[in-house]
Amino acid sequence: MRNLLCRMSYNGTAYHGFQRQKNAVTIEETVENALDLLTGEKNVIYGCGRTDARVHGINYYFNFKTDSSIPVEKFPLALNSKLPDDISVSMCREVPDDFNARFSAIKKTYRYLIYNDRIRNPFYDKRAMFFPRELDVEKMREAADKIKGTKDFAAFMAQGSPITDTVRSVYSIEIEKKDNIIQIDVCGNGFLYNMVRIIVGTIIDTATGKIKISELDERIASKKRENTGFTAVPDGLYLYDVYYDI
Amino acid sequence: MRNLLCRMSYNGTAYHGFQRQKNAVTIEETVENALDLLTGEKNVIYGCGRTDARVHGINYYFNFKTDSSIPVEKFPLALNSKLPDDISVSMCREVPDDFNARFSAIKKTYRYLIYNDRIRNPFYDKRAMFFPRELDVEKMREAADKIKGTKDFAAFMAQGSPITDTVRSVYSIEIEKKDNIIQIDVCGNGFLYNMVRIIVGTIIDTATGKIKISELDERIASKKRENTGFTAVPDGLYLYDVYYDI
Repeated sequence: MRNLLCRMSYNGTAYHGFQRQKNAVTIEETVENALDLLTGEKNVIYGCGRTDARVHGINYYFNFKTDSSIPVEKFPLALNSKLPDDISVSMCREVPDDFNARFSAIKKTYRYLIYNDRIRNPFYDKRAMFFPRELDVEKMREAADKIKGTKDFAAFMAQGSPITDTVRSVYSIEIEKKDNIIQIDVCGNGFLYNMVRIIVGTIIDTATGKIKISELDERIASKKRENTGFTAVPDGLYLYDVYYDI
Repeated sequence: MRNLLCRMSYNGTAYHGFQRQKNAVTIEETVENALDLLTGEKNVIYGCGRTDARVHGINYYFNFKTDSSIPVEKFPLALNSKLPDDISVSMCREVPDDFNARFSAIKKTYRYLIYNDRIRNPFYDKRAMFFPRELDVEKMREAADKIKGTKDFAAFMAQGSPITDTVRSVYSIEIEKKDNIIQIDVCGNGFLYNMVRIIVGTIIDTATGKIKISELDERIASKKRENTGFTAVPDGLYLYDVYYDI
């Protein structure tokens, strides 16, 4: 039985997130159904992480174990022929038996897109946050510098999450503006529930002056969710890449 | 009564084209309903042209006559608040009483996008034609050079169209490739039904060798639809811009 790692991209708009659930279409179920059709097996995929409803994937990884004899290089096109047009597998390779797309991940990058103009753009609808007020990228970068690092990110976790170990390392937060698009890349070793979306909301609230930059360290150290910014909409969030040591 | 010209962009995926029809949602009806809500009038809009189902607009123009006293500079945001997120008005100005967005147009540019890679990209689904075979851009440009000009474009008109005067001027066809996207901009004084989509199909068929470049002049001169290429899918077509002398 081979352990195969696949990379895929998906437009998350039509899905209720990655994880299989009752009475709602998810990425996990859709990919497993396509694999079942292709291999004649009953497949289980192990995703690199959960993404919420309306969140997208650019380079999302999953692995699965199979007795199928289909050569790895044939898998992407064969699997895509069974998948809907909003999901596409672009790579497949064999990995060691103990490899797991989630637990073997060393770090991950999420990308967040903000469409920043007075007038909204229909082609960024459901693919970016629309933010009509002017945003100062330099101020956003200052806020990002305060947020990154290895620390307790409890203030950046959705309330009600059962996780108790809330220390994480955010290695970098890179912010670029091109035309009307502000792109925020957040790279870290792991992320709490809604953490990237709250980081983005906090960066925006700091840039607009709702949160004072001089208060940001203290607000983070308070570990209280009410001391950080709003939760940015899921539509602008993309799992951008995952790094493995294989 | 003022005559107002508006520019809008729209993602055509959810619409059955521009023109109002029974039992199907169209751009025209959606914009007129939004205007009615805003002005309290019963508005009629005059679009710069018909776009088919699933065709998009980047800079689409329409005009309408109104007794509303809303200042022109307030119209875009006010109207957008009544419109769905896949339609956005970005400009409004007063024009002479005899101006008509369709009949006053001097020339128009359509853009066509091809996603040209072995593996499809979910983020170009419904926004470009997916073409997995390699395309030689130089060969495409050679075909485009043969097609452009002032001539009878009957061979580029969908069969069954009632139009009899089929002479049109195509001023330019510009083809650019960036990463996996091939962009074809077609500028002309007017277009027959499906003309841009048949031009694109003919350019592709010539690049792949299905149509010989040496036969292209003769095929065009035959005025017969069966002698030109396939009709490219509507999803990749955008009304890109319209030029007026005002």
